[in-house]
Amino acid sequence: MASGQARLRGPVRIVGAGLLGASLGLALRARNIDVILADASPSTLALAIDYGAGRKAEPGDAPELIVVCVPPDVTAVTVAAELANYPEALVTDVASVKLAPLAELRAMGADLTRYIGSHPMAGRERGGAVSARADLFDGRPWVIAGHDKISYRRAAPLESLVLDLGAIPIEMDAADHDASVALVSHVPQVVASLLAARLVGASDSAVALAGQALRDTTRIASSAPELWVQILAANSASVVEILQEYRQDLDAVIEALASPTANGARRTIADTIAGGNAGVTRIPGKHGQALHFSQLMIKVSDSPGELARLLTEIGAAGVNMEDLRLEHSPGAQFGLAEISVLPQAELALAAELAAGGWEIVGATA
Amino acid sequence: MASGQARLRGPVRIVGAGLLGASLGLALRARNIDVILADASPSTLALAIDYGAGRKAEPGDAPELIVVCVPPDVTAVTVAAELANYPEALVTDVASVKLAPLAELRAMGADLTRYIGSHPMAGRERGGAVSARADLFDGRPWVIAGHDKISYRRAAPLESLVLDLGAIPIEMDAADHDASVALVSHVPQVVASLLAARLVGASDSAVALAGQALRDTTRIASSAPELWVQILAANSASVVEILQEYRQDLDAVIEALASPTANGARRTIADTIAGGNAGVTRIPGKHGQALHFSQLMIKVSDSPGELARLLTEIGAAGVNMEDLRLEHSPGAQFGLAEISVLPQAELALAAELAAGGWEIVGATA
Repeated sequence: MASGQARLRGPVRIVGAGLLGASLGLALRARNIDVILADASPSTLALAIDYGAGRKAEPGDAPELIVVCVPPDVTAVTVAAELANYPEALVTDVASVKLAPLAELRAMGADLTRYIGSHPMAGRERGGAVSARADLFDGRPWVIAGHDKISYRRAAPLESLVLDLGAIPIEMDAADHDASVALVSHVPQVVASLLAARLVGASDSAVALAGQALRDTTRIASSAPELWVQILAANSASVVEILQEYRQDLDAVIEALASPTANGARRTIADTIAGGNAGVTRIPGKHGQALHFSQLMIKVSDSPGELARLLTEIGAAGVNMEDLRLEHSPGAQFGLAEISVLPQAELALAAELAAGGWEIVGATA
Repeated sequence: MASGQARLRGPVRIVGAGLLGASLGLALRARNIDVILADASPSTLALAIDYGAGRKAEPGDAPELIVVCVPPDVTAVTVAAELANYPEALVTDVASVKLAPLAELRAMGADLTRYIGSHPMAGRERGGAVSARADLFDGRPWVIAGHDKISYRRAAPLESLVLDLGAIPIEMDAADHDASVALVSHVPQVVASLLAARLVGASDSAVALAGQALRDTTRIASSAPELWVQILAANSASVVEILQEYRQDLDAVIEALASPTANGARRTIADTIAGGNAGVTRIPGKHGQALHFSQLMIKVSDSPGELARLLTEIGAAGVNMEDLRLEHSPGAQFGLAEISVLPQAELALAAELAAGGWEIVGATA
């Protein structure tokens, strides 16, 4: 999260208290900005308020900014209602597609001088306020999709929001946005889902051989169908264009593998893998994230209370543990605790733990 | 690594001192087994010896077991040479395909009564002795591909090797092995490479939006073309069969997305994502075990010692914690501890913790 005085005055009204809405609320509350939460489901709303993501709406609320965090299919109609109900507020949305809501709002005759779409490139496999995190947007790109009906000045509160959250504002029109996310998000979803679907009829002995490669390539295949039908349908033109190119390449590989000794077949296969090598180098590193933690790997013997003892000692050392992951292999006599701490705390903690008899088997910056 | 006395007496001769050969050498040396290293490249050999993965061959060496760790294209010819040079030794290989080397050896008239293929399901994106790890095989499945020419008794040193390394022996014939790895490893490689290749011509602003989803789905696309041409060509029949089914599903998605408002189009898209959901559930947990754990999500307040107190109480309840993941959001006043336990322990533990005042905010089976 960015430091210093918040740019937004608030209040900020958030409509839809799922993962994104509740995370947004937590992050803004942490900056002492008044957050008004609304959700079609009273229980979802109550949960997000319990989590500290904001308060209920009250008569007379005059939000500076309204952020609509609802599924793509109902984004335009929700934005239109908010524009009508709060005639002073700037309204944005965070849907994964940007052309469709803008076109729908135009068709409805909504006041586009107070609407600007946006899209934070942040999310998690698990949804709901229960998975919300105040640091979800930290260092992440956040697309601001301008259009010809809104002035730069009127859109200012959205840029303030993005900067207050420590995210990186990226200006891009709706068409460029939709083509870009088709490539980096929507097509990968289709490709991963189709791959994972091949496992449905597989034998137990085959899936028993699965390793990290399969887990990584299919991780996003556990995403929710309801949401993805909306996203893919709303961005179908861009997605289809890329999938058709993908299919051409796939056909070439299938043809080469069907006759692997034919002239040029090995060349085609090599070009496919080499093309992937070249593509991967285009992906920016994790340097988008504002905070980097250091990890210490500590050997923890497989006897009761050992991990608790380790955590007690870390607490006693006055070090704030940012994350903890336990690797525990049933065949081994010990587990590995991966402790994430701020880089400046790493050396002192390592020294303290080593002095206490803990074996540090690795460290990554 | 498994505990107790090593089953192998040694020496073990390792031919090929790359990632797998050097890792094998490190793991065996850690168990005080004499390791003889050989490599076609003197500098690769010297590096692996420097790393402590074994020693040079000497006249009169009489290895109990020879492990051939060379690329698939030269596996059979290397195995045949080792069988001829060491007439007392059992010879195995670790190539990613098993039918092709066996067929080549048969065609060469090699002594199959002393050869048995195998395949450890372990690896890293980075190759070479410099990336070797003694724990590379720890808890990983290791396929032993028996055939009708070798006796159970003659193959015993291979099983000893697998168990000494703490890996999990899985018996499977060469055809089953090749079909299985086509599904869990070779097709994912093709799919990831083709996806990553789509990024080559992408704009900088598009790839700037890339997140963890794209990074995960394309991570293995950085693998070496030379090696993968050999693997894919050697297992082409199994790979093509799965890629053709994949293409059928892809065609259906492209057709649906080309006319997203047509009858049944949204159903096809939803089925695609849901099929991926179902496929992902087939993948066993992290340690290659068939065991499924239940998860309890427990609220842990953000004050020192709270997590240690929770873990102490879980230990006092007599429950063995299989894994632990801490979700900690800087903005929230509490973290979530995700505790993995055996399913039969879940209810009792939940009751115990609730009685102790802990708030359980979720559970997943």
